[in-house]
Amino acid sequence: MSLTPSKLAMVPFVSVENMMKLVHHIGIENFLRDMAAEIEADFLRWELFDKTPRIGSHSDVGVIELMPTSDGELYGFKYVNGHPKNMKEGLQTVTAFGLLAEVYSGYPVLLSEMTVLTALRTAGMSAVATKHLANKDSDTMAMIGNGAQSEFQCLAMKAVCGITNIRLYDIDPAATDKCAANLAGLGLNITKCKTPEEAIEGAHVITTATADKDMQTILTDNMVGAGVHINAIGGDCPGKTELHRDIVSRSTVFVEYPPQTRIEGEIQQMDPDHPVVELWQVMSGTAKGRQSAGEVTLFDGVGFAIEDFSALRYVHNKIKGTPFYDDLDFVADPDDPRDLFGMLQRAKG
Amino acid sequence: MSLTPSKLAMVPFVSVENMMKLVHHIGIENFLRDMAAEIEADFLRWELFDKTPRIGSHSDVGVIELMPTSDGELYGFKYVNGHPKNMKEGLQTVTAFGLLAEVYSGYPVLLSEMTVLTALRTAGMSAVATKHLANKDSDTMAMIGNGAQSEFQCLAMKAVCGITNIRLYDIDPAATDKCAANLAGLGLNITKCKTPEEAIEGAHVITTATADKDMQTILTDNMVGAGVHINAIGGDCPGKTELHRDIVSRSTVFVEYPPQTRIEGEIQQMDPDHPVVELWQVMSGTAKGRQSAGEVTLFDGVGFAIEDFSALRYVHNKIKGTPFYDDLDFVADPDDPRDLFGMLQRAKG
Repeated sequence: MSLTPSKLAMVPFVSVENMMKLVHHIGIENFLRDMAAEIEADFLRWELFDKTPRIGSHSDVGVIELMPTSDGELYGFKYVNGHPKNMKEGLQTVTAFGLLAEVYSGYPVLLSEMTVLTALRTAGMSAVATKHLANKDSDTMAMIGNGAQSEFQCLAMKAVCGITNIRLYDIDPAATDKCAANLAGLGLNITKCKTPEEAIEGAHVITTATADKDMQTILTDNMVGAGVHINAIGGDCPGKTELHRDIVSRSTVFVEYPPQTRIEGEIQQMDPDHPVVELWQVMSGTAKGRQSAGEVTLFDGVGFAIEDFSALRYVHNKIKGTPFYDDLDFVADPDDPRDLFGMLQRAKG
Repeated sequence: MSLTPSKLAMVPFVSVENMMKLVHHIGIENFLRDMAAEIEADFLRWELFDKTPRIGSHSDVGVIELMPTSDGELYGFKYVNGHPKNMKEGLQTVTAFGLLAEVYSGYPVLLSEMTVLTALRTAGMSAVATKHLANKDSDTMAMIGNGAQSEFQCLAMKAVCGITNIRLYDIDPAATDKCAANLAGLGLNITKCKTPEEAIEGAHVITTATADKDMQTILTDNMVGAGVHINAIGGDCPGKTELHRDIVSRSTVFVEYPPQTRIEGEIQQMDPDHPVVELWQVMSGTAKGRQSAGEVTLFDGVGFAIEDFSALRYVHNKIKGTPFYDDLDFVADPDDPRDLFGMLQRAKG
């Protein structure tokens, strides 16, 4: 009678350290490009996923959420918190981990950190939206909010959309300096800007990733010119928006999953039946994307479970044959499945 | 600049092996008794918990569920699958793991296997219900269904309720033999029975823990005598019950969380407004429990998130100062929380 855990009992675990090693092993731009392709592939089979808005547990200072989905073969979920006050205390605003399991048996097949991975997939998602919605000759992006997410956004836009000019703005110039320093030498032309107005000058794409939990109006209507594509990704919970409602009114709004976005996105400011277009339908050709060069398109991104599923699936495939994971003794797997108690008793030694 | 993960980045992880060691370190009956006390303590502060029915993802062969809750200070959730067909394939019907996090920061503080722990907490919960609902002189229990959960149920009844006579029955005599062998020498008088009728002869308490996903009628009405307390814990998903509805009709039904039990429990056979009593109210004295010695009481147990929270909280307290956990590099925690990208770049080495 072996006391060694069986193969099924062991679940591959990707730690933060191993995730970072995996990213560098693949190359960060390759990683962003490949993962964006996985997200696109999953958006093209959108209808077969089991979809539900995330399940949040709210407190005065933040939220903890579970985001499950399934494609019928694999089940995935992410645990993620959002605590805007954390940054001032030296902690991450967002931390996350996720799991993939086999639907047929219910047994987990991957446990992974997702703090780093979420930053990558969120950037990949914005890049996918921009690829499908921005004018084709776009090469300049204003990055409003230069916090933890900003460098990932800029690199994903380069890797997926060919955007090479980045105009940075943050209310805290130190954040802009940090972002610019991190992006130095990575093939982007960086301009540090002192006002949001300066940042969006000449920008074809505007991406906002700000974290304060308030109804913010970082951009006002007269700032946004014709033909711009906006990614508003920082407003992702009830009570948190980034754009003035006049901008939203003037834009064609594209979303991931309407029942979730109406609660969490920029469109929480609008009527409950404010018209939106589902991004997966644009990708699959069943709805129209941008219809004219002068149109303002808005990706009201809040992050949906399917994107995390794509990211986990990608990592699950990529770690095979690498040293970038550890096996965790995670599932009790007695020789006789009815004999859990016997397994426990034999462990007494 | 240190590349070593900070203290906050590390999350204690209790593997299956360490959970088994912890149980033996504490002693299995002590563990069951202490955890039952933790469940009682949490049921007494029931109203302050954030409650939601579990979120299930159903397939043809099983279900994968997430069960979150929070008491405002700690947040906990369990991942659990239920795949009745697994046993025939040499796998566990139920596997599980869980997590505790600090509500204030959203940072995880414990990751734990819960396959073994769920077996223990489920037994603890039945024992708590039995303690509050069975006649006081009860010393004999019929254990119907002698699978993975059965030995835990029997030992918890001994530890919490002083039940010392166990009458075993399973449709598969090999399961009964396994259960009896496992319980030998643990201070219980065991009787192996060939029929359910024989098993319930003289039993003050009847506990059913069968796993087939069908509308079963393991017990029929004429089998159940006056004054018996029944724990029906095997029927815990839609389409799965264990008792004939005439028994349910004749019993006073006690439940954990009505919105979940009406979907998953024995009462799914009954009208949607079939009267039930919430067990936490019996414990807190705001509802009546057993009202006469001849009454049939039924605990329609399906397992609720608060019980898992109690179990995780107990384990979290008990591992302190022991070697029965490993630190996992689970949360990305850069020195400057806005500098996740910089942390990633520095890991390039």
